[in-house]
Amino acid sequence: MDSTFVVGIDVGGQTSKIGVVDARGTVLAQTVIRTDTYDEIGPYIAELAEAVKKLIRESGTEGKVRGIGVGAPNGNYYTGTIENAPNLRWGHNKVEFSKLLSEAMDGLPVALTNDANAAAVGEMTYGAARGMKNFIMITLGTGVGSGIVINGEVVYGHDGFAGELGHVAAVRNNGRTCGCGKTGCLETYASATGVARTAREWLELSDEPSVLRSLDTIASKDVYEAAKDGDKLALKIFEFTGKILGRSFADFIAFSSPEAIVLFGGLARAKEFLTEPIEEAMNANVLPLWRGKVKLIYSQLKESDAAILGASALAWEL
Amino acid sequence: MDSTFVVGIDVGGQTSKIGVVDARGTVLAQTVIRTDTYDEIGPYIAELAEAVKKLIRESGTEGKVRGIGVGAPNGNYYTGTIENAPNLRWGHNKVEFSKLLSEAMDGLPVALTNDANAAAVGEMTYGAARGMKNFIMITLGTGVGSGIVINGEVVYGHDGFAGELGHVAAVRNNGRTCGCGKTGCLETYASATGVARTAREWLELSDEPSVLRSLDTIASKDVYEAAKDGDKLALKIFEFTGKILGRSFADFIAFSSPEAIVLFGGLARAKEFLTEPIEEAMNANVLPLWRGKVKLIYSQLKESDAAILGASALAWEL
Repeated sequence: MDSTFVVGIDVGGQTSKIGVVDARGTVLAQTVIRTDTYDEIGPYIAELAEAVKKLIRESGTEGKVRGIGVGAPNGNYYTGTIENAPNLRWGHNKVEFSKLLSEAMDGLPVALTNDANAAAVGEMTYGAARGMKNFIMITLGTGVGSGIVINGEVVYGHDGFAGELGHVAAVRNNGRTCGCGKTGCLETYASATGVARTAREWLELSDEPSVLRSLDTIASKDVYEAAKDGDKLALKIFEFTGKILGRSFADFIAFSSPEAIVLFGGLARAKEFLTEPIEEAMNANVLPLWRGKVKLIYSQLKESDAAILGASALAWEL
Repeated sequence: MDSTFVVGIDVGGQTSKIGVVDARGTVLAQTVIRTDTYDEIGPYIAELAEAVKKLIRESGTEGKVRGIGVGAPNGNYYTGTIENAPNLRWGHNKVEFSKLLSEAMDGLPVALTNDANAAAVGEMTYGAARGMKNFIMITLGTGVGSGIVINGEVVYGHDGFAGELGHVAAVRNNGRTCGCGKTGCLETYASATGVARTAREWLELSDEPSVLRSLDTIASKDVYEAAKDGDKLALKIFEFTGKILGRSFADFIAFSSPEAIVLFGGLARAKEFLTEPIEEAMNANVLPLWRGKVKLIYSQLKESDAAILGASALAWEL
């Protein structure tokens, strides 16, 4: 049995989750520190390293940890840096994350990438994409992220930032305004936020009765609950969301001809409402040679562990 | 100096071009045989092998040829087969092209891929993309083809058919009918055929004066000539074509973050009219991090040699 371990760190805007993981994808121990109480990277890295060391000690893996994998917004695999990350208080300028953490960890190697790429590596190492050489991971959360795997390797592109499929054009004309400054981006429709936007927009534009009308604020979770109760408008919202996703997936297939598209993230929980419209739109918009051939599958990683597992998987490649 | 050589074969619907090429990309000798006089693959392969052997003899490279590279419609790199190629009389069913040719050539290894992938390898080996590890080749001919290079390797995908970027959705609603059975495909707008379609459509829909009105039939070449003479409608057609291309290129960039997009093919000759609208639309539709950073370049291969060179380049990797 393999007796080495890796550490996975998921850096989020509010908290950073840390876990020690074995080769089978079992999280032996995990802990959390705050991300948002630091304005400067120095003190944050110091506490992070402290927490990692403590966790390694407590899990009895001292001397057996091979490396650290980090998933972070705007993380660049090539340079190990985080740049222009609006949700990280210390991440507005360029931060030499991997280098700083490795130094604070007495030279332990550190690999870093963005959250969605980490999720793709995690799925390939421990999850639904085990054994697959060509697949596209789509994370449906607050935004839409992606990690593209070709020939068994994550695509980082010329600059390390490949795989921004949340920002392809889902709607070319009069599309919704996106946080990135463009309009019509896939994530303005097909993220959790996008689903809530669709709900608010449609409630405004029609008189159709819906339980959603009684709510002060609407989140994607509310639309999901309403759909489960058979609310027609809510069901139509998921049908629309699935269609938007499926049409874009068809274009992704034309690019890299993956074996599967793997869905992950909060919104992917609505799979009973999304699968059919996605597959229908996807198959209607691909070339005949791919019709009915590209699998649509859902992440198999336990959701509470997924972010840590994804990040940790990077470290096996160090 | 490297004293080995390769053979490149470009299989087209009417003719097959054959060349002996050195490591610098010089075509030492070339010849042509008909493709369209054979209903069966057997006799075609026999004549092809005969022609290749004769060319090798005549060019004095006997015993120094390392392998044969073939570019062919619907060519599959993984399997060495050609499948469902409507323009090849013997290509309607699955044809074991590489195997048959290799046998007829006394075991010389044969690599096969589609025309656009061959063009990408050619550009990387001898042309404008030398030294580039990440780029996307777009061929603007009768249709729109593509060859995607990531980390120095052509992307073939799960099944060998990746890189069908002519069939992504350029227009989602009321798009033009494509030969593939879908509507709104990029190639219905941005190919030579697409440019001619735009001309015919716009002449019908407006009263705008144009020299194109005097023609019985319109080809993209006519639109190009008219644009060179300052015809306003013709200039607007290229502006529109460039915009359609640039918008799609922006989505391609979000996928693989290439260093450059390389244009090739008959329509790419209209670069004086295409470059500006392409770059404008491309930069308006990418994430800020890529704005102004992805190069748009044109093939540097001599057009008469390009197809042979592209195919031949495959053989260096054998």
